[in-house]
Amino acid sequence: MAEYLDAQHMLSAEAARCRSAIRTGQHAGPTAGLAPGCVQANLMILPQALADEFLLFCQRNPKPCPLLAVTRPGQTDVPALGADIDIRSDIPRYRVWRNGELIAEPLGLHEFWRDDLVSFLIGCSFSFEEALLADGLEIRHISQGCNVPMYRSTIPTTGTGRLSGPLVVSMRPFCAADTIRAIQITSRFPAVHGAPVHLGDPALIGIADLGQPDYGDPVPLREGDIPVFWACGVTPQSIIQHVRPEFSITHAPGHMLITDLSNSRLAML
Amino acid sequence: MAEYLDAQHMLSAEAARCRSAIRTGQHAGPTAGLAPGCVQANLMILPQALADEFLLFCQRNPKPCPLLAVTRPGQTDVPALGADIDIRSDIPRYRVWRNGELIAEPLGLHEFWRDDLVSFLIGCSFSFEEALLADGLEIRHISQGCNVPMYRSTIPTTGTGRLSGPLVVSMRPFCAADTIRAIQITSRFPAVHGAPVHLGDPALIGIADLGQPDYGDPVPLREGDIPVFWACGVTPQSIIQHVRPEFSITHAPGHMLITDLSNSRLAML
Repeated sequence: MAEYLDAQHMLSAEAARCRSAIRTGQHAGPTAGLAPGCVQANLMILPQALADEFLLFCQRNPKPCPLLAVTRPGQTDVPALGADIDIRSDIPRYRVWRNGELIAEPLGLHEFWRDDLVSFLIGCSFSFEEALLADGLEIRHISQGCNVPMYRSTIPTTGTGRLSGPLVVSMRPFCAADTIRAIQITSRFPAVHGAPVHLGDPALIGIADLGQPDYGDPVPLREGDIPVFWACGVTPQSIIQHVRPEFSITHAPGHMLITDLSNSRLAML
Repeated sequence: MAEYLDAQHMLSAEAARCRSAIRTGQHAGPTAGLAPGCVQANLMILPQALADEFLLFCQRNPKPCPLLAVTRPGQTDVPALGADIDIRSDIPRYRVWRNGELIAEPLGLHEFWRDDLVSFLIGCSFSFEEALLADGLEIRHISQGCNVPMYRSTIPTTGTGRLSGPLVVSMRPFCAADTIRAIQITSRFPAVHGAPVHLGDPALIGIADLGQPDYGDPVPLREGDIPVFWACGVTPQSIIQHVRPEFSITHAPGHMLITDLSNSRLAML
């Protein structure tokens, strides 16, 4: 028990240290590789008028929108994810949207904050990628030093009144044996997208050309590779932007919230 | 607790009833579909001189050779798999081999029994197929009323001194979503072959033509199907026959030992 407490304490301390560096402007870049072992989260902030519906959308679409925490309107702390979190300052870079148009990419939100804003913290594939790497699998876009390729598929999400649209998927290629292992490993992490949604022929989910992702960078396939597709946390951003809400805030791509949660404690077994 | 005991008692009673019908010659056919919920087992009987090495082979190759029980030399009961089992009479049909040649297909073994014979009971894919069907997946060879197609692959087993050779794999086609689900389900059953060993391009494991299985019947692929390959319990028979032992006994294909074990209790989680 003491050892577990020590490990959790070390994780939390490192997460808090990273958040402090971000809050004070010492770190303003992407968060990949920071605080290894800690869960990182996507951010979606919406006015309460749309937040209730978005919560329902997340409930209906847990694979692209695995919720780690939701705040009350106006709440700026997120105690479930870390004792000292201030959602207005603890992400290195934000994107602020008005009527679906990007109006700012600030380092903090104090000038944009409103008392009706609800924050959604959504699981991120960094957690399962850490588990894949720990098992010895190669994640090709990490080897290549680029972003994961993402595609708007023809797989529909389960819509609500205003919120509907296609699932965005991320693609990671693996040989057959590693595909099987990757399915086993990611199945253990339903809180961070879980098992893949498709593998093999991209055309079956409406992807005409793997070389032309809608987001991120292309990753070429090697001989014997199988493309494996996971539900992607970009899905809610893609769907929200389609609605063009009067106001919304997201994290800038790759600039996540570092939480005190342990990746390994997200595993369901 | 009472309910669990009742369920286990009903399974055991049905298994014992089936074994009794087999022992008395009332049932002499294949065992597929008998005693639903009960584990069925492959049989390999070897003289002690080769049995020690075969046990090592099984230890090194748990995916094709998942051992449920091994007897002492000459032992005819298998209490771990059922209180009343007599290995000489409780399988509907046997195959007796001398120097690698099939010499008899008897309904019982009393005239062939020797005090140096060791029985190996090996898990069988019926158990995981039951779990796949229970989840709503279609198993194509069952729909078609034929045997599962099996192929000698180029995947090597981990050999011992005399025992080595290629892995035999069974193939079941699924759409992509069902492939992912089938990997999840069968991963829960390491005692009955577990997760697949390959999926996708058959040529990568040395299978030139899916339409020409080495054992069983061909199952055509449909549009969008992915062929999924599991390690197969025919592997040890294939390897033993290559060695041409002076004497050995197996079950006749499809004529398995019905045990008291519950399929669901084989699941590791």
